[in-house]
Amino acid sequence: MTPVRVGVVGYGYWGPNIVRNLHALDNCQVVAVADTNPRALERARRIYPGLRLTTDQAAVLASPDVDAVAIVTPVWTHFELAKAALENGKHVFVEKPFTATSQQAEQLVELAERKNLRIMVDHTFLFTGAVRKIRELIDNGTLGPLYYFDSTRVNLGLFQHDVSVVWDLAPHDLSIMDYVIGQPPEAVVATGAGHVNSKVDMAFITVYFPGNVIAHVNVNWLSPVKVRTTLIGARDKMLVWNDLEADEKIKVYDKGVKVTSAEGVYDLLVSYRSGDVWAPRVDQTEALKAELNYFLECVMDGRTPFNDGQAGLRVVRLLEAADRSLAERGRTVAV
Amino acid sequence: MTPVRVGVVGYGYWGPNIVRNLHALDNCQVVAVADTNPRALERARRIYPGLRLTTDQAAVLASPDVDAVAIVTPVWTHFELAKAALENGKHVFVEKPFTATSQQAEQLVELAERKNLRIMVDHTFLFTGAVRKIRELIDNGTLGPLYYFDSTRVNLGLFQHDVSVVWDLAPHDLSIMDYVIGQPPEAVVATGAGHVNSKVDMAFITVYFPGNVIAHVNVNWLSPVKVRTTLIGARDKMLVWNDLEADEKIKVYDKGVKVTSAEGVYDLLVSYRSGDVWAPRVDQTEALKAELNYFLECVMDGRTPFNDGQAGLRVVRLLEAADRSLAERGRTVAV
Amino acid sequence: MTPVRVGVVGYGYWGPNIVRNLHALDNCQVVAVADTNPRALERARRIYPGLRLTTDQAAVLASPDVDAVAIVTPVWTHFELAKAALENGKHVFVEKPFTATSQQAEQLVELAERKNLRIMVDHTFLFTGAVRKIRELIDNGTLGPLYYFDSTRVNLGLFQHDVSVVWDLAPHDLSIMDYVIGQPPEAVVATGAGHVNSKVDMAFITVYFPGNVIAHVNVNWLSPVKVRTTLIGARDKMLVWNDLEADEKIKVYDKGVKVTSAEGVYDLLVSYRSGDVWAPRVDQTEALKAELNYFLECVMDGRTPFNDGQAGLRVVRLLEAADRSLAERGRTVAV
Amino acid sequence: MTPVRVGVVGYGYWGPNIVRNLHALDNCQVVAVADTNPRALERARRIYPGLRLTTDQAAVLASPDVDAVAIVTPVWTHFELAKAALENGKHVFVEKPFTATSQQAEQLVELAERKNLRIMVDHTFLFTGAVRKIRELIDNGTLGPLYYFDSTRVNLGLFQHDVSVVWDLAPHDLSIMDYVIGQPPEAVVATGAGHVNSKVDMAFITVYFPGNVIAHVNVNWLSPVKVRTTLIGARDKMLVWNDLEADEKIKVYDKGVKVTSAEGVYDLLVSYRSGDVWAPRVDQTEALKAELNYFLECVMDGRTPFNDGQAGLRVVRLLEAADRSLAERGRTVAV
Repeated sequence: MTPVRVGVVGYGYWGPNIVRNLHALDNCQVVAVADTNPRALERARRIYPGLRLTTDQAAVLASPDVDAVAIVTPVWTHFELAKAALENGKHVFVEKPFTATSQQAEQLVELAERKNLRIMVDHTFLFTGAVRKIRELIDNGTLGPLYYFDSTRVNLGLFQHDVSVVWDLAPHDLSIMDYVIGQPPEAVVATGAGHVNSKVDMAFITVYFPGNVIAHVNVNWLSPVKVRTTLIGARDKMLVWNDLEADEKIKVYDKGVKVTSAEGVYDLLVSYRSGDVWAPRVDQTEALKAELNYFLECVMDGRTPFNDGQAGLRVVRLLEAADRSLAERGRTVAV
Repeated sequence: MTPVRVGVVGYGYWGPNIVRNLHALDNCQVVAVADTNPRALERARRIYPGLRLTTDQAAVLASPDVDAVAIVTPVWTHFELAKAALENGKHVFVEKPFTATSQQAEQLVELAERKNLRIMVDHTFLFTGAVRKIRELIDNGTLGPLYYFDSTRVNLGLFQHDVSVVWDLAPHDLSIMDYVIGQPPEAVVATGAGHVNSKVDMAFITVYFPGNVIAHVNVNWLSPVKVRTTLIGARDKMLVWNDLEADEKIKVYDKGVKVTSAEGVYDLLVSYRSGDVWAPRVDQTEALKAELNYFLECVMDGRTPFNDGQAGLRVVRLLEAADRSLAERGRTVAV
Repeated sequence: MTPVRVGVVGYGYWGPNIVRNLHALDNCQVVAVADTNPRALERARRIYPGLRLTTDQAAVLASPDVDAVAIVTPVWTHFELAKAALENGKHVFVEKPFTATSQQAEQLVELAERKNLRIMVDHTFLFTGAVRKIRELIDNGTLGPLYYFDSTRVNLGLFQHDVSVVWDLAPHDLSIMDYVIGQPPEAVVATGAGHVNSKVDMAFITVYFPGNVIAHVNVNWLSPVKVRTTLIGARDKMLVWNDLEADEKIKVYDKGVKVTSAEGVYDLLVSYRSGDVWAPRVDQTEALKAELNYFLECVMDGRTPFNDGQAGLRVVRLLEAADRSLAERGRTVAV
Repeated sequence: MTPVRVGVVGYGYWGPNIVRNLHALDNCQVVAVADTNPRALERARRIYPGLRLTTDQAAVLASPDVDAVAIVTPVWTHFELAKAALENGKHVFVEKPFTATSQQAEQLVELAERKNLRIMVDHTFLFTGAVRKIRELIDNGTLGPLYYFDSTRVNLGLFQHDVSVVWDLAPHDLSIMDYVIGQPPEAVVATGAGHVNSKVDMAFITVYFPGNVIAHVNVNWLSPVKVRTTLIGARDKMLVWNDLEADEKIKVYDKGVKVTSAEGVYDLLVSYRSGDVWAPRVDQTEALKAELNYFLECVMDGRTPFNDGQAGLRVVRLLEAADRSLAERGRTVAV
């Protein structure tokens, strides 16, 4: 089996994790790393003395000994870099969010299809044991029909100067939501504010789905505490995913509601069922490693990944809708 | 000192707490309890064998030996009961939410003013040690200028057949928000859905204030876990109030953000300051007792309580705005 | 069915709970309450205006209209009061610890047997849903053979001037240990110290059982935090009981150890199995109510309760052994 | 400044952390790594291609270009390796516990003194921000006179085939205890049991100090949950260190006890003071890095480290006393 030869463009905050994991995979050969910042390359050189390092991104994107490129740069550069890579016949693994606009995403998807190349968008959380377990519990009917998805992702920082908290944090929640709900949304409402610089630093995004299914995402760069919690309500069981728990990340509650007849002013209309709680064991493998391995397999086998350009495009459309809604203090935006 | 003679109308879920606390106060005499449900009166009789009990609410509202009435009935009955009480010259303590419409609230406020009578709306949380401490930390400048108020109040049940989760749970958060932010809001956006019966059972309410101050309230009757947490962000310090903590309900974080110059694509625009955490001791006196005592004092001294009819009206207006916004999937409603 | 007529002796800290629960039970009539402190009786009078109240304990113990007495006084008075009650032909419900010495306990057990009367010692925790669930999980083999029982019960206060922390808090843990382990111990080792007055205010008690089963109890009146946690290790599954958790008091861990062959200096001798976690629903009925109801049933049916004088005697023997061990800084005391 | 040239003996579980940290320090040059297991060396080679690697431990201990050796091997090998190193004139950094017997420790201490060489025992926790903060709060009088030190270190595994849980886990707690209490103990009592193989897998160690100061250590390889918590009681304030907390590792409680006069049987002898809680910011630097840097400084400056052979010897004496006590089910062992 010939390993896939990968060039990595971008060695800033996330790039080193990409290189480290690719390096450890048997079916991969990291051919080159490009970054416009020589200091970033210096950091890479200390860990991988033998690696080809360059400030010339275009060279890597065009290099004949590269089969696929990983683009780990700021979002506003994704389109040009990915376009060049695809035009040069390279498969593309690209950081989230996919692109800065949905038009760009559509163009890349079309181009990849035309050239029969793979695009994978780095929605890393989809490869965690937790998210895979949640999807499994929905798919096998354990939870019953979905009621809602309510995700909170708040902490102090990390401010970025090129994007708002919506484009920085919400892609995680929206890609997970897209994956576990698995149907197209109807409308987006987003509210929020910015306090420190010109960027929105906290936002509340509601996504409406058919059949009264609703999702809500709370993202905030100005929280004194770190929270990574998702509640999923459904008819038969309910679920809490607390990603900061070391061991019991997912808890499934045998809880539910039953509508009953009621009489008298203070009587309840509904009754509640409350049973055991169950924390299924969740696979602890590093998600990024599993994801990159899957990328290499898709490249080798010509398979379309489930987190492909279309998945990336769906998330970008939601981000755009959120931006439009935010700009008008919560106007409902159909999608 | 002559004690205030109080008649209580309504002995359902909350009424017993009102009667128990009034009973224990020295400056109060509980004269009569009325409830249309004879079984409710039977429960009262077992605990207070000597008390005057009646199914005739109007009789209590008109009784010459009653100085003030506590109205602890469903919200749709508040207006008629309070109106009768005021017309009969009685001071009024009324359960939250104040009334079913803002027109009703305005009428009652006007009537009380004309008759020089007191109205107090039972926003119990304003009398907890936690909320009083939060207000103190804001008033004395410890937190610095406010950025946001983000409150989560979710649990499984209690469904009521006459109101939605917005009118059931959100009055708590909105009255606290009104109290600690202390300025008039500009606009409301609410999203949500109903899954079990025709009522909205989960809702997300954003309230915009001048100067980029923003509030968010997450209320949900369908959560598998109980959460009662409020984050308050401000320039100098940040605060978390977890009402389910037995001992450290409030934590003040010496955390903040400073905008700094940045260079290079991945550099941060801002830096973070992270210091000690401090959990001030919070008074554990039962809030309802303190509130009722304050009501009696206001009645005796002719003082206007801070949680008066105007305060109740402000909350009802926000609830109405939330309802209008919800009905159109998040339309922005100016207030 | 004629209700059991009960006289209560002692209306201090715990007595009001006894009276309140007896009062609410259908098969019981609270005939009289005695306390040597008139102020205690005054408190009782306010709640139960019709009740016979007296400072004459002996009168209640001898009253012909009393079938059974509940003794809720300091431990050093238990023997004389219970002896008088039994001699007068009354069944006895007595606060924990049963008596101040094992000789006293033995005498009372012998006397009750001779007069065919019931003694029940108030080991309230044995009637909680949590302890009953733990016993069930052991009895039905879910946990497999027991390895250990490790209980921590610490908080700030409540100091009592007549007993040490061992006699105040450890009876809870030792009675639970006795109930769930269900076999006679072999030896006791206790260490500890006193810092504030002459009493031991923190202690560590080890109890050895046959077959390498071991129990440990950590009791402390000087802890800044309240902890109520018991770990139970066993061959097939392990269990944590956190009594301060509102909802998930018991968690069962599908964890275990398997001895395997090992090679090389740093290799492990054993491997670990780690599976799901399960929090069974636990009955939330007030334990004291269930216990008192059971007492009344035992009295009416002539049944011997499982928490009888023998059970109380076993706990007192362990407390005496702990005291002897403590006095000599941890000498091993065979029991 | 000439860097210190270090040879590392042992590249098993902990050795890689030593090498990684030494590698990153400016004032150090890692000259060689020895391990009797060629597979361990293979792992080292992949990360440090240029490093001298050998299965010949003696060669490293004797190498003329080595100034100091780090001994990161099983405890039963420490004595021979450290002795050889010292005899060859090398400074010694050695894994905890220092040696397998106190006689060995005494010999090494004597030898190092005679040859004017440094010994440092790797009590890593003494270099964490948390332990340094605790020591500071004691030294500056914030806590007031100490009452007790109560440490719990339990989890599932890691079983080692050459030592018991006492020699594996308790050195952490005993070295911290030694550091923060800072006075010689009087007696040791240890209880415990073994369930899986012949080794003790859970133990409870009490250490008596002068003046009613008492320490307790609970170590357990068979716990379903991981706990790393130390309570420190003192006259003026109390402290909880939870090492598993990401942010608020240390909490200082303004709590205390005051003896007061009492009257009446149930009255309290003491009153409690309960004020604010304070979580001081704790330095998050990697402890091992700080410790190794300090070792290099001590070597270069000829300073005696505070965690020297004497400190290691004190811990070994406590471990031996615990073993003797355990063997006789808790006999009190004077130290």
